[in-house]
Amino acid sequence: MKLARFNGGRIGCVIDGTLRDVTDAAGIDPGFWPPIGVVKLVESFDGKRERLLAAAQAAAPIAIDSVRLENPMPWPNKLIAIPVNYHAHALEMSSPAISKNGGFFIKSASSLSGAGEPVLLPDLPGRAIHHEAELAVIIGRRCRHVARDQALDYVFGYGCLLDMTVRGKQERAIRKSYDTFTPLGPWITTADEVPDPAALRVQLWVNDELRQDALTRDMIVDVPEIIAMCSSVMTLEPGDVIATGTAEGVGPVVPGDTITIDITPGVGRMSVAVQQGEGGWNIAIPHRV
Amino acid sequence: MKLARFNGGRIGCVIDGTLRDVTDAAGIDPGFWPPIGVVKLVESFDGKRERLLAAAQAAAPIAIDSVRLENPMPWPNKLIAIPVNYHAHALEMSSPAISKNGGFFIKSASSLSGAGEPVLLPDLPGRAIHHEAELAVIIGRRCRHVARDQALDYVFGYGCLLDMTVRGKQERAIRKSYDTFTPLGPWITTADEVPDPAALRVQLWVNDELRQDALTRDMIVDVPEIIAMCSSVMTLEPGDVIATGTAEGVGPVVPGDTITIDITPGVGRMSVAVQQGEGGWNIAIPHRV
Repeated sequence: MKLARFNGGRIGCVIDGTLRDVTDAAGIDPGFWPPIGVVKLVESFDGKRERLLAAAQAAAPIAIDSVRLENPMPWPNKLIAIPVNYHAHALEMSSPAISKNGGFFIKSASSLSGAGEPVLLPDLPGRAIHHEAELAVIIGRRCRHVARDQALDYVFGYGCLLDMTVRGKQERAIRKSYDTFTPLGPWITTADEVPDPAALRVQLWVNDELRQDALTRDMIVDVPEIIAMCSSVMTLEPGDVIATGTAEGVGPVVPGDTITIDITPGVGRMSVAVQQGEGGWNIAIPHRV
Repeated sequence: MKLARFNGGRIGCVIDGTLRDVTDAAGIDPGFWPPIGVVKLVESFDGKRERLLAAAQAAAPIAIDSVRLENPMPWPNKLIAIPVNYHAHALEMSSPAISKNGGFFIKSASSLSGAGEPVLLPDLPGRAIHHEAELAVIIGRRCRHVARDQALDYVFGYGCLLDMTVRGKQERAIRKSYDTFTPLGPWITTADEVPDPAALRVQLWVNDELRQDALTRDMIVDVPEIIAMCSSVMTLEPGDVIATGTAEGVGPVVPGDTITIDITPGVGRMSVAVQQGEGGWNIAIPHRV
């Protein structure tokens, strides 16, 4: 199943290239604040899958390009991110290698946005802002201390994710947590449609230029190991989003660009506009004492 | 007002040293998942304050030591943390000074726990685990691009916070995001009872030994500047928690210790037990490429 969120918090299933509104069958009130409807739906999904499918089959088709696709997973308990997770990207960034994994970092959940929303660049003269194309993993069931050979049982689904990043000498989280700096989408594809997360191709274009082209089998820390690692530290909750790290080919974007990410087979493809936003925090760590 | 959470998600006001159950008046269903009741209460607090006060006055007093105090702010949109924010702590850690502020990091919201819950140390032989005593700021109203002279208008309240930290060469977030690594409490004291967050004393004891003793006027980046900085990057949501950084005197704890934090005047005092937990992730960043 492909679960989308659109037009002010409505929930849709994608069938045959069209959207079907299943908001009522999902039991989601689009106006509820905070917007935890999808988190709740994921937690209770097993009992609702058949009802959602029936509602989707019965619903009128909606053209996808007629709606505004929104962040499919607002207000997760946490948005986890894996640093430098492909060797060639480690080389291009002169980063610490993690041939065996030094951990994760956390991005602000408020940085999540959707396929129909622009990436807004902060006003930071002289700072480069880069795209990073990543496979997103959505957790389906609460877990802690998961062994790697059971790890995929806890995955709800997958999505395309852009980990937008201001370069320069500041804390990583501030450089990556701007509003709209984590486009996720175009929807969440449930795990039954993606049998092996190590058998995917992640591509990213800026306008017509192919910039990133990676195979998830080349991850330094693969998806089962990521889940084992994260759950060895903290309880993973339904709806938690894990950005699994980017490959080589990251580079700058500027206002007017369009970023397209495609993860195939089966995860999805989305294009987001890059626009100039306002404000930002440009003060670097000045010196060591 | 002092808002506590206890005994499985019930909400209490602290009056004259006793707890009053105001769960119903707060409109909170203790069994609702995900547990966003307090976030929602904060967002709608202005319209509920009088009703809560009346309910508290009418309720039977409950001895505080007869309940289990829980995390007063579960499932916030984000748990923000300010690194090294007192010069003397920067010196003791040989850390980058932030005489003017390089940003923030994000901890997992699942690391939050309450005054009545133990800190569970992961099983990481050879790794020191330190206490860091911090003033917590709770955001009251959604905001973005807040000027520092308006910043305190957006504060809902304050609490005591322990930013527990595994030392060593790993990503900071993994070292700080273990379950129970962010005790918060004993309750949230609303901002009207704490007129100046720069006029507080933060003390921490391990057992009977005073380890940390700081004045918040010595913060490198003060609370208004922290809010201005965070909101220049991201939308702050009602219920967001900001750990404002620790002072000198951090040090190790071991199972069997009791950590006591006191922030005076008016914020509160809590003692949490340190116990041995299980598991953990002990793999360091091995080398640079």
